[in-house]
Amino acid sequence: MLNIIDKSKISETDFLNKLKERNQVELDDITNNVKVILDDIKSNGDNAVFKYTEKFDNVKLTKNSIKIKKEDILKAYDNIEDRYIEILKKAKDNIYKFHKRQITNSWITNENEGETLGQIVRPLERVGIYSPGGTASYPSSVLMNAVTAKVAGVQKIIMFTPPKNEGVNSAILVAADIAGVDEIYCVGGAQAIGAMAFGTDSVEKVDKIVGPGNIYVNTAKRMVFGYCDIDMFAGPSEILIIADETANPKYIAADLMAQAEHDVLSSSILITPSEKMVKETLKEIKVQIKDKKRKDIIEKSFENYGAAIIVKDINEAIRISNVIAPEHLELCIENPFEKLNSIKNAGALFMGNYSPEPLGDYFAGTNHVIPTSGTAKFFSPLNVDDFVKKTSLIYYTKEALNKVKSDISYFAKKEGLDVHGDAVDIRFEENKKNI
Amino acid sequence: MLNIIDKSKISETDFLNKLKERNQVELDDITNNVKVILDDIKSNGDNAVFKYTEKFDNVKLTKNSIKIKKEDILKAYDNIEDRYIEILKKAKDNIYKFHKRQITNSWITNENEGETLGQIVRPLERVGIYSPGGTASYPSSVLMNAVTAKVAGVQKIIMFTPPKNEGVNSAILVAADIAGVDEIYCVGGAQAIGAMAFGTDSVEKVDKIVGPGNIYVNTAKRMVFGYCDIDMFAGPSEILIIADETANPKYIAADLMAQAEHDVLSSSILITPSEKMVKETLKEIKVQIKDKKRKDIIEKSFENYGAAIIVKDINEAIRISNVIAPEHLELCIENPFEKLNSIKNAGALFMGNYSPEPLGDYFAGTNHVIPTSGTAKFFSPLNVDDFVKKTSLIYYTKEALNKVKSDISYFAKKEGLDVHGDAVDIRFEENKKNI
Repeated sequence: MLNIIDKSKISETDFLNKLKERNQVELDDITNNVKVILDDIKSNGDNAVFKYTEKFDNVKLTKNSIKIKKEDILKAYDNIEDRYIEILKKAKDNIYKFHKRQITNSWITNENEGETLGQIVRPLERVGIYSPGGTASYPSSVLMNAVTAKVAGVQKIIMFTPPKNEGVNSAILVAADIAGVDEIYCVGGAQAIGAMAFGTDSVEKVDKIVGPGNIYVNTAKRMVFGYCDIDMFAGPSEILIIADETANPKYIAADLMAQAEHDVLSSSILITPSEKMVKETLKEIKVQIKDKKRKDIIEKSFENYGAAIIVKDINEAIRISNVIAPEHLELCIENPFEKLNSIKNAGALFMGNYSPEPLGDYFAGTNHVIPTSGTAKFFSPLNVDDFVKKTSLIYYTKEALNKVKSDISYFAKKEGLDVHGDAVDIRFEENKKNI
Repeated sequence: MLNIIDKSKISETDFLNKLKERNQVELDDITNNVKVILDDIKSNGDNAVFKYTEKFDNVKLTKNSIKIKKEDILKAYDNIEDRYIEILKKAKDNIYKFHKRQITNSWITNENEGETLGQIVRPLERVGIYSPGGTASYPSSVLMNAVTAKVAGVQKIIMFTPPKNEGVNSAILVAADIAGVDEIYCVGGAQAIGAMAFGTDSVEKVDKIVGPGNIYVNTAKRMVFGYCDIDMFAGPSEILIIADETANPKYIAADLMAQAEHDVLSSSILITPSEKMVKETLKEIKVQIKDKKRKDIIEKSFENYGAAIIVKDINEAIRISNVIAPEHLELCIENPFEKLNSIKNAGALFMGNYSPEPLGDYFAGTNHVIPTSGTAKFFSPLNVDDFVKKTSLIYYTKEALNKVKSDISYFAKKEGLDVHGDAVDIRFEENKKNI
């Protein structure tokens, strides 16, 4: 059950510290193993990819079978209900509409005579999405990653997912197809990351790798950062609910449990000034949990990282929430918009009693790839800007350069880069060659 | 001297491969040493920071001397010329004006009745800038990093720079002060990165670390990524000049040499369809190089990574440039804006004969922290977006949620997350408690 914490009695709780450390695992063995795999792929390409796929996934790949065939993707549509296909398409449309608003335009400015400056925004050319196998294999995540890249204008989107003897999950294939993924490869783990980052005969190198993965995948992503770009590291999922006495304990109980069903490492936290709300929420959990399939996971998760924190008032609740910087924050309070400006750190913010977290996971159109483990202090939900790059543009006329030449030259020489200064000065030396 | 490469005679040149590998150094020894330092700082805070500063920089620090005093910063103004101070201020103003245009506003949208979605943009709270010592200590870089963070609205900007017995370079202190840096600490190397990423008694943990550094600093930054955010890894500097017969070989020679004076690892490349332009540029280099202080570095750099590539036409030049994805690209051609749309990968783009690269380094207002070593394919010049984080906002009314509840519930259950579906459904069960 949830850990009950009374903030008036404890100044800095062990619980908050425990939470902070949750995602900071570094295992030397894993690092070394992943390095061997990546080095091997860098040197030996496809052969190394095939070797590790056989070793870890027990599947023999060839240049012919590494990529899933278009007809197999189309066949996947027959394996899932029409309603599921319709919902995937609706979700895709909503994601598309929301992310369209994130597009940044190129711009130029001519503030002074003869001086043109600007910023050109262009999509990345090739993006690779990692989609894990097993229970963490979510069609919704495929949509979130692929549609966002598509909106940005990425030309080629490829996806990697672990091979399975029974074939890849049909819903994953359909989601990828609906989202506009161009090619799907059945390779998983660190070997998938290596193939995307370095390129092989069968796989063209990508500019960026996105998507969640296990510790091997995350370690590999960290190591290839710089060869290509990567997204943030997705840790265990989290919810923090700030509630006043107007909230409904039934909904709070349900939302806390929804988060906890993900994983025994998930964290579900209620912060409220109302002791009554805590009591009723606990009572509700006891009622609702009975018939849940994932009861054991929920209970374990609550024990590990679940909490009900009783505070003086809503402002103190928000202060603690800003320290935790949760992935998902629900404001189940009377006037949530009144407090919007006080929320400094949160990945996604759910306002009021009828905006439960699963609405954002599946349907509203906002991205569900959101920073975890306190990284919402500096990371953002996945967005269109993650799939573009910018180029600065500088154009001065001769007259405009003439006005600033001596300042540039002086500054450069002060920094000991005399030739930088000379490169400006030489353009104004008396000389027949000047044009 | 520059390597001359005739593209019509060589299909894939060794030179381009050599260039690609330039920045991909990974040294296990350094990684291990840096890991020891970071682990020590994580466990022992200030004491570890003081220990490594004494070991590597031969300076004994205390809690009292680790931070440079305000009066010492003010005194630094007396040590540099008034003109220098004026130029630093003008450069700061230009950087400020350009970067102001990069600010992204928060937005909300109400496309459908009862559905409010949005994106809230907020500055990072604390940012740390690393400013290297020695010859790589540039006041202009301090401006570029600090002013950009300031424009984003960062509340607290701190700077770390290696200690020196004779005191830190006055121009660095003045530039930091002009740019709005709040605190300056005299600690360098991996220990500076550790102190900023983990926090110690003397140093409050930052949300992001930016600024160039040597291999120890870069390795440490890679390792702390996730504890805080980091900027990209700055490699050796590069210029690529695309020239047609209207260009001036005198200017090209000067611009290539300016890049080469940075470092023997710098790369200066001319690509042109005009053999005459190559000949005249080489002749010009021979004339101009004679009286340069850094002649030896320039020559060595040209030998290592300098090239004049002769191509069929300007379009082929641009194609090669897009593969190289240079940090700085000069288009010294008759109508540079005609080709703007073909330039896919470049950090900063200098148009025409009077926009030399040092204009961007020092004065135009664009950022000179620009992706190197081909990473302009996926990274951008440092910009205001690097110092903000975003929060998604979701607010549905009961009626709006009611319309989509069964789709969400269906989707969640298909992914095996039944309780996610229950959390939506429970809000519409017949019940006196519903509000």
